[in-house]
Amino acid sequence: MTLDKTWYTEKWQGQGAAISLRVTDKIHDEQTDYQRIEIYETESFGRLMTLDGLVMVTDRDNFIYHEMMTHPAILTHPNPKKVLIIGGGDCGALKEVLKHKNIVRVDQVELDAGVTRAAEKFFPALCTSNNDTRANLVFDDGIKWIQKSAAASYDLIIIDSTDPVGPAAGLFEHGFYRACFAALTDEGLLIAQSESPLFHDALINSMRQDMNKSGFETLSTLLFPQCTYPSGWWSATLASKGSLNQPRTCDVDTLYYSSGIHESAQVLPPFLKRKLEQKI
Amino acid sequence: MTLDKTWYTEKWQGQGAAISLRVTDKIHDEQTDYQRIEIYETESFGRLMTLDGLVMVTDRDNFIYHEMMTHPAILTHPNPKKVLIIGGGDCGALKEVLKHKNIVRVDQVELDAGVTRAAEKFFPALCTSNNDTRANLVFDDGIKWIQKSAAASYDLIIIDSTDPVGPAAGLFEHGFYRACFAALTDEGLLIAQSESPLFHDALINSMRQDMNKSGFETLSTLLFPQCTYPSGWWSATLASKGSLNQPRTCDVDTLYYSSGIHESAQVLPPFLKRKLEQKI
Repeated sequence: MTLDKTWYTEKWQGQGAAISLRVTDKIHDEQTDYQRIEIYETESFGRLMTLDGLVMVTDRDNFIYHEMMTHPAILTHPNPKKVLIIGGGDCGALKEVLKHKNIVRVDQVELDAGVTRAAEKFFPALCTSNNDTRANLVFDDGIKWIQKSAAASYDLIIIDSTDPVGPAAGLFEHGFYRACFAALTDEGLLIAQSESPLFHDALINSMRQDMNKSGFETLSTLLFPQCTYPSGWWSATLASKGSLNQPRTCDVDTLYYSSGIHESAQVLPPFLKRKLEQKI
Repeated sequence: MTLDKTWYTEKWQGQGAAISLRVTDKIHDEQTDYQRIEIYETESFGRLMTLDGLVMVTDRDNFIYHEMMTHPAILTHPNPKKVLIIGGGDCGALKEVLKHKNIVRVDQVELDAGVTRAAEKFFPALCTSNNDTRANLVFDDGIKWIQKSAAASYDLIIIDSTDPVGPAAGLFEHGFYRACFAALTDEGLLIAQSESPLFHDALINSMRQDMNKSGFETLSTLLFPQCTYPSGWWSATLASKGSLNQPRTCDVDTLYYSSGIHESAQVLPPFLKRKLEQKI
């Protein structure tokens, strides 16, 4: 069976596999200085935003990714106040972070203002906290931002980036993690999206080792389903300067996250555990 | 982007979504009395078997499904000896069951001998235990088999079926679960594949309620990733006549299953928990 032109398709790079969503309309198409942003109405996933042809977010399943990129790190920190989000242009992570009352400021440094402007227009449910007085939306290069950040200026850094190709490649490297380490307080935590446990185990392993070399003592890779990302299974890697605290109780509304899910997400299946114990 | 004819595509029924795998060769195509069996060589997933155009098994990711359909139930039972597999024609579940030394007999009742013959030829790694003296491969209707089974004749029933359409529809119904209940010993357990937590929450809910009505007191739905099944996220529902025992320690080799994964898989995210608590 072949799919006709009413389907959007993303080939999962190097995996000989692809996902397709049936689209009913294309409602936005813009070439920014950085990338091509396209937005579709789909038959069953609500709206879909793609960047350079790759799925960034859909209405239907983004809640899992955004909750897992934020609540585990926030609740592991004893009292996070200042947060930096690098990337995150769709503002879904920002919204989850700002559900927590102890947060006093979030700097969100997204390279491409076009992504946030498109999200505000087409994904209003993700952008309900953009005007929160605690939110500081900056459109700049995250790598430059972290390099000029004062030492110990953040409690939490969330790297909500695109894949490690093009402008985001530098966000998966040792030098960047070292700069994050310096910008974090002593109890500070970093969390980075770390791709698919099935497809990108070697990348997860190399990210973890780069984080370790950058000074982070304790790492925990969290696994969760994400239907529209490659393999349908995704990960985020949490890095701490010291040991990891027992998470605080979650007192905000969530659809996917719970303390039980948090604990479960950290359990690695044997095949992945073995892979992540390999030195590179 | 559209995919050319070198791709196999499965539309996920009613979901406006599809998965595609790049194929390098088609090596088998057979219409049996029950269904069309096709086997492909793929670029990155090894071999792929489809039944009536739907993914049944790939070399690359079947380990997760087969391990989760077997080890949680086997290790929850204090001492399972006699097992019935309904469906399971590719023999991957059978192989996992027979890793356990306490199992003395497995009746596998698959409707379509063609599936098993094709698996033996094209998926030899799944069929390494087909000649085990404890394995009894029967090609018959699972519903008829269970109806004529003696009371209390099995410790464990594994329903490794295709989707609830066509010949497999009866395997998702109240009357069938009631017959399974009768065929199980007092400590007996049933486990059934129960589709996608993201796409088929209503079906999971209805299966659970039918199992309850059939006499099973305790239910536990286990979640796991399964890249090539709809949504990339799958489930199996375990039903027990009494309460569920703490699982025994796993002493067989596994790639995905561990006692930690077993416990984790039973934790339902809030959106699903709410759905499965709804009465229908």
